[in-house]
Amino acid sequence: METIFGTVNNINVNLLPAVNDEHGGVLVQVEAPMEPNVFHYMLQNSITEWKLQGKKGVWIKMPIELANLVEIAVKEGFWYHHAEPHYLMLVHWIADTESTIPANASHKVSIGAIVFNDKRELLVVQENCGRLKGSGIWKIPTGTVEEGESIYEGAIRELKEETGIDTEFVEVLAFRQIPKSFFNKSDLFFLCMMRPLSFDIQKQDLEIEAAQWMAFEEYANQPLIQKDGLSKYIKDLCIAKAEGDYQGFTPIPITSSVIDDHMSSLYFLKHALDQE
Amino acid sequence: METIFGTVNNINVNLLPAVNDEHGGVLVQVEAPMEPNVFHYMLQNSITEWKLQGKKGVWIKMPIELANLVEIAVKEGFWYHHAEPHYLMLVHWIADTESTIPANASHKVSIGAIVFNDKRELLVVQENCGRLKGSGIWKIPTGTVEEGESIYEGAIRELKEETGIDTEFVEVLAFRQIPKSFFNKSDLFFLCMMRPLSFDIQKQDLEIEAAQWMAFEEYANQPLIQKDGLSKYIKDLCIAKAEGDYQGFTPIPITSSVIDDHMSSLYFLKHALDQE
Repeated sequence: METIFGTVNNINVNLLPAVNDEHGGVLVQVEAPMEPNVFHYMLQNSITEWKLQGKKGVWIKMPIELANLVEIAVKEGFWYHHAEPHYLMLVHWIADTESTIPANASHKVSIGAIVFNDKRELLVVQENCGRLKGSGIWKIPTGTVEEGESIYEGAIRELKEETGIDTEFVEVLAFRQIPKSFFNKSDLFFLCMMRPLSFDIQKQDLEIEAAQWMAFEEYANQPLIQKDGLSKYIKDLCIAKAEGDYQGFTPIPITSSVIDDHMSSLYFLKHALDQE
Repeated sequence: METIFGTVNNINVNLLPAVNDEHGGVLVQVEAPMEPNVFHYMLQNSITEWKLQGKKGVWIKMPIELANLVEIAVKEGFWYHHAEPHYLMLVHWIADTESTIPANASHKVSIGAIVFNDKRELLVVQENCGRLKGSGIWKIPTGTVEEGESIYEGAIRELKEETGIDTEFVEVLAFRQIPKSFFNKSDLFFLCMMRPLSFDIQKQDLEIEAAQWMAFEEYANQPLIQKDGLSKYIKDLCIAKAEGDYQGFTPIPITSSVIDDHMSSLYFLKHALDQE
């Protein structure tokens, strides 16, 4: 049989390039521009073939440059799973079984870092942007954990970027959840205790107006720090930690063969379990 | 001056409907189908007008039914911010200043719940789907925290849905971060200690094969629970908790006027600060 693209003996010509995923599905990565009608034809052929093969979830990672193909995929039954600045991930469950497509990410994760040197001085910054710009307030360094990054890696990286200080991660002292902080998405902020490995500050210019080691009392006595709900707790946690009255959650590497096999970190009060 | 849509005296006819956001930007919600050329014309006019008004970020929430308009927005300089099954959020920073558009969500959040009754029996389930289907393993109830939901609300809701048991939230005993668990997105799993307020199990049929109160030793002696990295720690945390040797992070409501004014919860070792 002849088709406009070749014969059925050479069926791959008619199928979109796809790789199998670990869950019985396929991932299509459309990389080069395609004529919409060609894409449509190949998508329909591919779905027929994947159904025959018993595939379940079909994912299409569509670069933003190919936005003209989105409508075609939607017409074929795909819906949106997630998007990042340069691509849109579409998905379609083609099996008769119930969909096991994972929920989309719902939280942005950020860190705040408490770093004391051996003179009981706290590492603090003034920010160049955001609500505190120009306020003169000295605050602990904060930053966003990047996609795919660990919380402890994010804390170490942000401190290095903003202040030039090398640190090692000690523990999570507290965390804050802010539901619906942007659209319907939420924030999780982890307050991290860090141990400095260097002391010479090299501030980053883009986000940071100034950075210094500051006597803890001077930091704590700033009026806004005393007044603000979160800052007051950060101050109290610093004091409790300095006096040895407080233990945070420490990460240890674990895998879980029962659940997912992924490498991961479990954060908990390790100190308490070690006493057993 | 005449335009194809009306006169300049009635300028709103040429602009997309938009509401101001809290950050000096506008949000366009395109709800009804539009001719692509009409959308294109109105988008260009609107951007010109918003630039004159000094607007910064322009957001377009585009329903999946209007996928045919995505390409036009992209050609006008918009990129993707995030997507959910039924819409795509596009964004364009039209000011000359540096963009302060927030990062997209990077983490899915789930909970696992430890619920003991007063006979030291643990609430356990067998799942109908996923890796453990048909395995016969009894495990603690788990579930996904929904968009916009608090961790403690999610834990209470999931327990009620899966087992019919009413509970109150006590504390987070530990959390697990799994970087890059799906595509480049990560998982955060919070292990929650819950206190039961009811005891009569009514299991949900869709996800749950069976649910029961089980003697803790029977749960802990299951071979897979003893072998698995995560399950072993869950077991040890149950024991430490039962013996009074372990304190988790308790949530308290806080706002932070310095940072964002949002209602939020701070989870920390409240017990330790209370002793001060």
